[in-house]
Amino acid sequence: MACVARRRGHDVRLWGTWLDDPMLEPCERGLPHPRLKLELHGIELYRSTRLAAALDGAELLVHAANSDGVVGVLTRAAPHLPDVPLLSVTKGLLESPRTKKIGRIDEIVAEHLGRSIRFVHAAGPAKAMEVARGVLTWMQFAGAPEDAEFCARALAGDGLAVTTTDDIAGGELCSALKNAYATGLGLWDGHVGADAHDARAACFTQAIVEMHRLVQAAGGRPETVYGPAGVGDLHVTAAAGRNRAFGERVGRGKTAKRVAEEMLAAGELTEGYPAIASAWRFASERRVAGLPLLAALHAVIWEGAPVASTLASLTLG
Amino acid sequence: MACVARRRGHDVRLWGTWLDDPMLEPCERGLPHPRLKLELHGIELYRSTRLAAALDGAELLVHAANSDGVVGVLTRAAPHLPDVPLLSVTKGLLESPRTKKIGRIDEIVAEHLGRSIRFVHAAGPAKAMEVARGVLTWMQFAGAPEDAEFCARALAGDGLAVTTTDDIAGGELCSALKNAYATGLGLWDGHVGADAHDARAACFTQAIVEMHRLVQAAGGRPETVYGPAGVGDLHVTAAAGRNRAFGERVGRGKTAKRVAEEMLAAGELTEGYPAIASAWRFASERRVAGLPLLAALHAVIWEGAPVASTLASLTLG
Repeated sequence: MACVARRRGHDVRLWGTWLDDPMLEPCERGLPHPRLKLELHGIELYRSTRLAAALDGAELLVHAANSDGVVGVLTRAAPHLPDVPLLSVTKGLLESPRTKKIGRIDEIVAEHLGRSIRFVHAAGPAKAMEVARGVLTWMQFAGAPEDAEFCARALAGDGLAVTTTDDIAGGELCSALKNAYATGLGLWDGHVGADAHDARAACFTQAIVEMHRLVQAAGGRPETVYGPAGVGDLHVTAAAGRNRAFGERVGRGKTAKRVAEEMLAAGELTEGYPAIASAWRFASERRVAGLPLLAALHAVIWEGAPVASTLASLTLG
Repeated sequence: MACVARRRGHDVRLWGTWLDDPMLEPCERGLPHPRLKLELHGIELYRSTRLAAALDGAELLVHAANSDGVVGVLTRAAPHLPDVPLLSVTKGLLESPRTKKIGRIDEIVAEHLGRSIRFVHAAGPAKAMEVARGVLTWMQFAGAPEDAEFCARALAGDGLAVTTTDDIAGGELCSALKNAYATGLGLWDGHVGADAHDARAACFTQAIVEMHRLVQAAGGRPETVYGPAGVGDLHVTAAAGRNRAFGERVGRGKTAKRVAEEMLAAGELTEGYPAIASAWRFASERRVAGLPLLAALHAVIWEGAPVASTLASLTLG
């Protein structure tokens, strides 16, 4: 997103958390970013200790810590936050410190901070490297209309198409759920082996049906599920990537715990593993019915149910 | 579908058209089907001349000629058709002999025959080989409720899940349109090369948005687009297969006409090629607005527009 903003002609400051200093160090010496392999031309770099300076006078904030880091980062940033839109690319669900129920990131952050922020959730299928390379990407920014449109005007262009919605609930739920359901498509691949196209398509469709039910339970709108936030993001996540790979390895017969440990040891995050637990907890706490695929995923990934018989007894619709 | 019906315990007769006799000949000698590589155990084979005998006393008909063949086959079959549901797996649009407009197969067939038939359209992501192998498959049968449910009861089971709908318009339109839009995903792959996941997902989402508009114009319902007939079938078609391959080769720089000729010479049908023309004609005749992706596909595939600049100016939403 820093590259995108720079390409649109903005002055860009990139601040890294205390975990990111080793990543910024080579960039400071003009070398490419160690993970993205991109040179960060014209972007001002801020190490973790310089948070207040990085935020000073900013007109737009882009927040990209993962869901485990979002409360910690925004708590430290809070005293310095200017009153501008905060575009968050974080995807997931968090536990409320008050109710202990699982819910939307913007609401949980507001609870932690004791005040609301001008939160805009960035939904839609956007692989970081492809966005940076200028490959056609369709994002949907969900927030208060004037804030979402401000973010869209600032960043859209050069291959990045942005539409907006005020359906924050739908956007955030879709973004959190797609990691869970993408694991399901991988599971089928691993279980059936080659040529499981029908099963993958059935699973994709069932995921959309169930995401609709979960989004409605969260107060979101169906059209958000059928646009870039739902259909689009599930498509990109299920086509490739770590969540799919995680499911595939479980589908081939290893336990989920073992695969997650192996992937963690190889430096690969498997968001789908906790995402299935979060989605199932969200569904249970809100008593959402009609989720046979999510139930099957939870049974296989978290309850040790056998893959073959669980998938064989799956109902669709 | 013959294998599926046999597996469900029915007495099955497989009749082949005048083009299929060479395919039936080895099967009669107990050899596998030359294209599917499957042995047709316990299925009675009927060569093209024995149409009346094949239809005599049938309780359910499954029709699987392609859209070019459907009128010819059903015209010959008409004098012998029993009054039972006809499950059609044919996907496409046809021209009305009366109005010269393009429309739904069941309506055009009824016009040709001068009477209606108990038509049930089989929609949903169902690759023939995977259905025959028992891979999980979700089909949706669209027709009069009692006829659609009769077909579902007769064929569902052993990996094949079937739901029903009375939305014939939605089901048929989705089945016809997915070949056109799947070509679009291939186009992006060929044009961008590796790592066009974002563009593929954007294209998939835009296809669903436009299919919604086209289905509504045909009198169908949105939920059909968001279920197996739309989302599911587009997913399976875009993931692999000839329509995608056709688009990919055009995306790499060859003209559509040349690629279609090469694929025809290799014995590969490219349904996406005529499907784009049919879909565009359907949209134009009914003045459906808001179809930028279909317009771009038609421009590239049928009007010789350059791939790069046409895709670069595509609007989404």
